[in-house]
Amino acid sequence: MNRPLILVSNDDGIDSKGIAALIEVAQKFGEVVVVAPASHQSGMSHAITMFTSLRLTEVNDFGATKAYMCSGTPVDCVKIALSKVLDRKPDLCISGVNHGSNASINVIYSGTMAAAMEAAIEGINSIGFSLLNFAANANMDTAKFVVEKIIAETLQKGISDTNLLNVNIPNVDIDQLKGFKICRQAKGNWREEFDQRTDPFKRDYYWLTGKFIYEDTGDDNDIWALDHNYVSIVPVSYNLTAKKSVQSLQKSWTLNSSTVV
Amino acid sequence: MNRPLILVSNDDGIDSKGIAALIEVAQKFGEVVVVAPASHQSGMSHAITMFTSLRLTEVNDFGATKAYMCSGTPVDCVKIALSKVLDRKPDLCISGVNHGSNASINVIYSGTMAAAMEAAIEGINSIGFSLLNFAANANMDTAKFVVEKIIAETLQKGISDTNLLNVNIPNVDIDQLKGFKICRQAKGNWREEFDQRTDPFKRDYYWLTGKFIYEDTGDDNDIWALDHNYVSIVPVSYNLTAKKSVQSLQKSWTLNSSTVV
Repeated sequence: MNRPLILVSNDDGIDSKGIAALIEVAQKFGEVVVVAPASHQSGMSHAITMFTSLRLTEVNDFGATKAYMCSGTPVDCVKIALSKVLDRKPDLCISGVNHGSNASINVIYSGTMAAAMEAAIEGINSIGFSLLNFAANANMDTAKFVVEKIIAETLQKGISDTNLLNVNIPNVDIDQLKGFKICRQAKGNWREEFDQRTDPFKRDYYWLTGKFIYEDTGDDNDIWALDHNYVSIVPVSYNLTAKKSVQSLQKSWTLNSSTVV
Repeated sequence: MNRPLILVSNDDGIDSKGIAALIEVAQKFGEVVVVAPASHQSGMSHAITMFTSLRLTEVNDFGATKAYMCSGTPVDCVKIALSKVLDRKPDLCISGVNHGSNASINVIYSGTMAAAMEAAIEGINSIGFSLLNFAANANMDTAKFVVEKIIAETLQKGISDTNLLNVNIPNVDIDQLKGFKICRQAKGNWREEFDQRTDPFKRDYYWLTGKFIYEDTGDDNDIWALDHNYVSIVPVSYNLTAKKSVQSLQKSWTLNSSTVV
């Protein structure tokens, strides 16, 4: 029997410390193939490259592990991996370790989670991992500890009722971890604060900045878990239908009939 | 009392025929402000611009309607509109009319839907409109008819249990429309078919192409509705938690406790 085939990607780029940590752990479980962006792709969400072509280049950065960098987005990486690089469907796709949180509404903007979601859409068990430390040289010891536990559990038990997990890891030492919380996405959003500047030709330009607004009061969400030094595990769906709303709109709206006018 | 303030954006760019149609209809209902991408942004999903700055330029393409083009993504457009352009929170955000379908899994890749979702995250009733015709010169008569009916219903009744709709419009004449279906996102995905070519320097490059695979058997989904000449209306959530899976994983996994080891 083949060892599990594990596809690894990320959004911080193939040179990041986070993906090296992920590869190191994944190698304990199976045959690892890496396809990751050549450049930083944070905030790219589920973008795909439609107006330029893509390059795919083999690199020799991870010993015997086959690894490629792709000129496109995280989702492009997964698509080209599944279509052109791998000779069979992987047993698992893991993405990250992202340098920075993808908890709460960040899941929507995240290239790390989009790479995992793309594999999930294709029917593969997939996990995005993020560490709450933006630094390029972040210590990955706790992340590696967590990744190993979660890969083991996933390969053994699967992911029931979905095939996609958003795992966020508090930026603390292993002995400060309180445990793991399987929970929901916290309610929150980003309050924009555009930094307006003037260029040497007197024209305005803007840098997108902002701060996260936590709008939740529950203790069953990912932000709460992370604030209390738990690893948060949020099962994620790519069926975006607001199910309750289907029924309530069918009752309240008149535009749900076979009469056009 | 102020007339409703309506923010308009899209992903095909401010020069597209689809956004002109949307603006024309929106003007019947309230004060319209347009902030749309300067260039084509299809497939950009919920991407935000983090590594370059943004430009915002007023344009005079829509008569007395205030309109701006932004150098960034659809989501950047909505963020800068809410933060720097509008002096109050809009009553409605509409995005499109997209040239091409955003039904089923396309909702994940769509810049049109991401613009609407960004406004919804900020608490604004929002609708993405898409016409099943990719042509730049697509006839917008049916789209305008549908947009008018749906804006009227939304302003009158709101959108219960969510604040975001994905509306897709079949590419038929008005008298061929069967009606409107409030329904769910169909199950389906894209099968990639990378077009591999060799450049003049003997290096490979790839164009991302693919075909849509319909994997659903129900008659209560958007693809079914569109195939039967109904307008599909899917209420959308940006809480991606797979709720059923939270409970099932809490039962089946051991990694949900206060013990780390």
